[in-house]
Amino acid sequence: MTPSTFVAAIDFVGTFAFAVSGATAGVRRGLDLFGVLVLAFAAGTAGGIARDALLGATPPVALVDARYLGVCTLAGLVTFFRHDVVERLRNPLQLSDAVGLGLFAVIGARKALDHGVGPVGAVLLGVLTGVGGGVVRDVLVTQVPGILQRELYAVAALLGASLVVAGDLLHLPPQPVAVAGAVACFALRFLAMRRGWQLPVAKARRG
Amino acid sequence: MTPSTFVAAIDFVGTFAFAVSGATAGVRRGLDLFGVLVLAFAAGTAGGIARDALLGATPPVALVDARYLGVCTLAGLVTFFRHDVVERLRNPLQLSDAVGLGLFAVIGARKALDHGVGPVGAVLLGVLTGVGGGVVRDVLVTQVPGILQRELYAVAALLGASLVVAGDLLHLPPQPVAVAGAVACFALRFLAMRRGWQLPVAKARRG
Amino acid sequence: MTPSTFVAAIDFVGTFAFAVSGATAGVRRGLDLFGVLVLAFAAGTAGGIARDALLGATPPVALVDARYLGVCTLAGLVTFFRHDVVERLRNPLQLSDAVGLGLFAVIGARKALDHGVGPVGAVLLGVLTGVGGGVVRDVLVTQVPGILQRELYAVAALLGASLVVAGDLLHLPPQPVAVAGAVACFALRFLAMRRGWQLPVAKARRG
Repeated sequence: MTPSTFVAAIDFVGTFAFAVSGATAGVRRGLDLFGVLVLAFAAGTAGGIARDALLGATPPVALVDARYLGVCTLAGLVTFFRHDVVERLRNPLQLSDAVGLGLFAVIGARKALDHGVGPVGAVLLGVLTGVGGGVVRDVLVTQVPGILQRELYAVAALLGASLVVAGDLLHLPPQPVAVAGAVACFALRFLAMRRGWQLPVAKARRG
Repeated sequence: MTPSTFVAAIDFVGTFAFAVSGATAGVRRGLDLFGVLVLAFAAGTAGGIARDALLGATPPVALVDARYLGVCTLAGLVTFFRHDVVERLRNPLQLSDAVGLGLFAVIGARKALDHGVGPVGAVLLGVLTGVGGGVVRDVLVTQVPGILQRELYAVAALLGASLVVAGDLLHLPPQPVAVAGAVACFALRFLAMRRGWQLPVAKARRG
Repeated sequence: MTPSTFVAAIDFVGTFAFAVSGATAGVRRGLDLFGVLVLAFAAGTAGGIARDALLGATPPVALVDARYLGVCTLAGLVTFFRHDVVERLRNPLQLSDAVGLGLFAVIGARKALDHGVGPVGAVLLGVLTGVGGGVVRDVLVTQVPGILQRELYAVAALLGASLVVAGDLLHLPPQPVAVAGAVACFALRFLAMRRGWQLPVAKARRG
């Protein structure tokens, strides 16, 4: 598998996962079929579109490569028509969101490095790519984005993106490092969800 | 009328229509004069700004051509000071929104084709340009965007943008095709509003 | 101090001020430490990132220069761990927001002029840079952005950016003009807050 095929493959899996999370949020909100498809596409592509716009890689690949639309539409249709199956997973929205988070954090960092961005910038673009889809999804349905409230959400994206950048600095082979980063991000997020791990909260003196 | 004059003309009409929708939302929210003007400008230009940013056509035309600011300010002032007249229209916010939707979907698709974007990308950029202003307007006043909930909203934008791209593939003359696309989008949206047409909704199993 | 050092210096001060406003909003919302840091970074950099993306100056400086992350993290940590001290200021969120507003409006206009954007575009990009961080902060915590509701908020940004552009047209020395613009913006906003100055509100006929 060539590097670019490899990146494209995990990009599609991440897109599918985020699209399922968007479609699930839409079904729960009682949106109609097309609203669900729009939210699936927005959640599935917003992180990558923001990444490409900020890298100056315009027009963004998710808008010109028709397969992204296909992947999101498929995820949306499956979620819409087989919502009973999807909901049998324990918390399908957060689960698919965690898968997408790990894959996109890794891809975002990798693409930034390939565009010559330095280590800190690559980590930040990785985090942004990872969290972008979920933020847009949550803002569109007027919820405070999970990144601000959920357990170790941005920390997990930071872990995944940092592993990719560290691997690059150490000249490790990129593909295994990308897999390790995505798995580490997903694992940290998954465990934090299941066990309710959380960072400390400041005592605010007023509302 | 040259092609670029033609595009500019319908761009200004679409900007005016969306600016009226933004100003109307602002007046209903009880914003002060400048808040109304800001919301008019945001609604009138956000779709085009997003389109230009994603095409790499920076800085966006709506920020460098002062006439966009003039058109939005005019729309905001008229709506603010003659709000009684505007409200005599049946549902002025959704009506002006539907006009802007059709014009911007068509212009967005056209500009994307002119930048060498393929058919699917051009349709997506057309939809994005069409819905962008309304999404930003609704998010700013913390409402779930109409695109996710209103009757056949994104479908109508898809229709308008698709007609432009289909006309381009068939080598039809662009100006009549653009008019047909905008009219078709507006008509579909208008009828859906008046008659309450809607796509099916999935049965969610929990909130 | 060279011009670029001068711009960088006030950019960091503005970033710090907006980051404090973001962190304060996060602490009040009961976010955990990392959520507070994310909101500090988003509020501190969103205006500049939007400005750079719209100018085509990609990747945005706030993502590639690690010092922006450092400044935002510092502001977030101080606000999180010494929240009692920060809250002793009268309304620290709006105060830091007003400082950032003035500095960013001035920098945004200056950078736009340096990229060859005309006077109206430079004013608009200045306003956008000034208000961007606060809008993102408020949308993320699902509040109607202050720019739409608070006293003379966008008017103050408009004043600051306009002074920079006017100074440029009159060939005045840029550094004193930038300081004057930032001070004028802050002073107008500060007085409007303290005295409750407001523009007129339209009488809406329905909710």
